[in-house]
Amino acid sequence: MSVLVVGSIALDTVKTPMEEHADLLGGSASYAAVAASFFTDVNMVGVVGDDFPQEHIAFYRERGINLDGLQIVPGKTFRWSGEYFWDLNTRETRSVALNVFEHFNPTLPSSYQETPIILLANIAPSLQSHVLDQARNPRFTIADTMDLWINIAKDDLLALLKRVDMLILNDSEARQLTGQTSLIKAGYEIRKLGPRFVAIKKGEHGCLLFGENAFFSCGAYPLEDIHDPTGAGDCFAGGLAGYLSSLNTDKICFQHLRQAVVYGSVIASYNVEKFSLERLRTLTRDDVAERFEAFHRMSQFELLG
Amino acid sequence: MSVLVVGSIALDTVKTPMEEHADLLGGSASYAAVAASFFTDVNMVGVVGDDFPQEHIAFYRERGINLDGLQIVPGKTFRWSGEYFWDLNTRETRSVALNVFEHFNPTLPSSYQETPIILLANIAPSLQSHVLDQARNPRFTIADTMDLWINIAKDDLLALLKRVDMLILNDSEARQLTGQTSLIKAGYEIRKLGPRFVAIKKGEHGCLLFGENAFFSCGAYPLEDIHDPTGAGDCFAGGLAGYLSSLNTDKICFQHLRQAVVYGSVIASYNVEKFSLERLRTLTRDDVAERFEAFHRMSQFELLG
Repeated sequence: MSVLVVGSIALDTVKTPMEEHADLLGGSASYAAVAASFFTDVNMVGVVGDDFPQEHIAFYRERGINLDGLQIVPGKTFRWSGEYFWDLNTRETRSVALNVFEHFNPTLPSSYQETPIILLANIAPSLQSHVLDQARNPRFTIADTMDLWINIAKDDLLALLKRVDMLILNDSEARQLTGQTSLIKAGYEIRKLGPRFVAIKKGEHGCLLFGENAFFSCGAYPLEDIHDPTGAGDCFAGGLAGYLSSLNTDKICFQHLRQAVVYGSVIASYNVEKFSLERLRTLTRDDVAERFEAFHRMSQFELLG
Repeated sequence: MSVLVVGSIALDTVKTPMEEHADLLGGSASYAAVAASFFTDVNMVGVVGDDFPQEHIAFYRERGINLDGLQIVPGKTFRWSGEYFWDLNTRETRSVALNVFEHFNPTLPSSYQETPIILLANIAPSLQSHVLDQARNPRFTIADTMDLWINIAKDDLLALLKRVDMLILNDSEARQLTGQTSLIKAGYEIRKLGPRFVAIKKGEHGCLLFGENAFFSCGAYPLEDIHDPTGAGDCFAGGLAGYLSSLNTDKICFQHLRQAVVYGSVIASYNVEKFSLERLRTLTRDDVAERFEAFHRMSQFELLG
C-alpha cells in the first residue's frame, strides 16, 4: 500500500548550544515523508516557493517519494528559525516567515485520492480536514498537531478529531488539550474526542499508546548525544504511518500499532543524531532493523522469574 | 535467601491537594521492608521512640519481618511532614523532627551479619557504610540515596559508591550527582563511580536500568489515580531487593535485574494507590503476579512484523 503525507515544507535555521546551521531542509512533510519512505511508497503534498533548492527535490526523488502533489509557486519558501536551550528539551521560535505557505491549499492529484493510509502531519487542522474532504475511502487516518492549533484553532481541531483514527501529540499538548495533569487520564480522554488510538510523545521518556482497553509504553532509545531534535516528532509520525502502510492490511489493530510506534521511535532516534535530515540520507533498512531489535532488547523481560 | 533492610522509620503527616493525614507509618525502612516481604524473609534495622504505636510493630510482624535489629529507645520517633503540589510530582517538606533518629547507630545483630542481600535504604551514606562494615560477605548490596546527601555528604556518598553493587536514585538526583543533563550519560557515568548497576527512577515515566553494555527501560504502570506518592521509591527498592533475594542465586546478572526492576515498579505502583502503607496491607502475591503480567503486556511487541 502507499501513504499520503501532507504537511509543511520549510527552510530552517536551527541553533543549539553547540552549533548553528541555516537554510536546512525542514518542515513536517519533509521529515514525515522521508521517514515513511523507509517502509512504503509515499505520496507527498506540500508547497514551496521558486527559491526552493533543486537538491532537496532531488533528495525526495532519491527516496522514491511521489511529488505529483508538490506545488511549486512563485515566491519564497516557508522559513522557520528556532533555538534550543542547554538540555535540548525546550526550544524557542526565533522567527517565522510563512511566505508561500500562508496561502497553502493542499490539493490531492487524482492519483493520490485513493491512498489507503493518510498522515496529516502538523499543519492547521482546517487544512488537515480539507485533505480528508478530498480523500476517497481511506483505510486509516492519522493526524499530528501542536500547541499552536490547540491555542488558536481548537474548534477546528476538535472537528478533525471526530474524523481520524489516530492522533499523535506530545505530553504538554495532551495536558493542554484535556486539562488533565495525568497523561494516562489525558490519553483516554482524547480517545473520547474521536480517535480510536492516541500516541503521546514524551521526548527523552519515550511514548505512550492508548487504544480500547489497551495501553503500550515505549521507551526512548538511549542516545548519549543528540545534535538536533527538530523533526523528531514528524519522523515518529512518518515512520509509524509508513510501517502501517507496509503491512498491506485492511484491519489495523493495536498489535500493529505497538510495532508502528517502535518503528516511528527508531526513525526519530536516528534523525536527531544529525542536523536536519542529514542522518536519514545515509540510513539503511538494515540500520532500521538493527535499532528495532535494540528497542526490543531494552524493553523485554521474561514473564516467569 | 533473606534480605537486610536498613533505613528510617517515621511517623508522617502527608498533605495532598485532596487529603491530609497525620501520624502515618512511614520511613524508608518501613516501605522497603514491607515491599521486600512479598518476596522473601526480611531482616530489618531501624530505630523508633517509645511512642511508636504497637500496631505498627504488629504490622511488621504480620508481614513476617524479623525485628531483632529494631531499636526501641526512650524518646520520640522521627517525624516528617510534607505537602504535594497539584500534579503530585513535586513536594515540599513542611517539617522534620529527627528525634531518636538523630543519634541512630545502625547495629546488626549477629543473626543478621551474614544476610546475603543488603538494601541500604535512604539514610545518611556514612550510616549506610557503617552497616556494610558489619556485614560478612554480602552477595549483593544496593544503596538508595537522595538529593540531601548529594548536597551535604557527597564525599561519604562517593566512598559508599565504591562499595556497593547497585545504586538507585531519581532522575534529578542523577543529574545533580553527575552534572549531566542526559540521563543516559548520567547513568553510565555513575557506573564509573563504583556500582555495576544503576537504576534511575523517573516517576510517572518509569525507570532506566544500566549495566555493563546493557540497558533496560521500564515504563510506569498506567495509574489514573494516585493518592500518595510517599514511599514509592522505597517500595521500588524494597521490591527489587526482595525479588533478587528470592532467586537464591549467587550470581545476580542483568537479566535478573530487569525482572527485579519490574517487580519493584509493581509494588511501588500499588503503594501509591492509598496513603502510607495502607494498600500493601491488603496486597496479595496474586495481585503482584497480575500486575507483573500487565507490565509485560504494556511493554512487549513482536520482533517480526
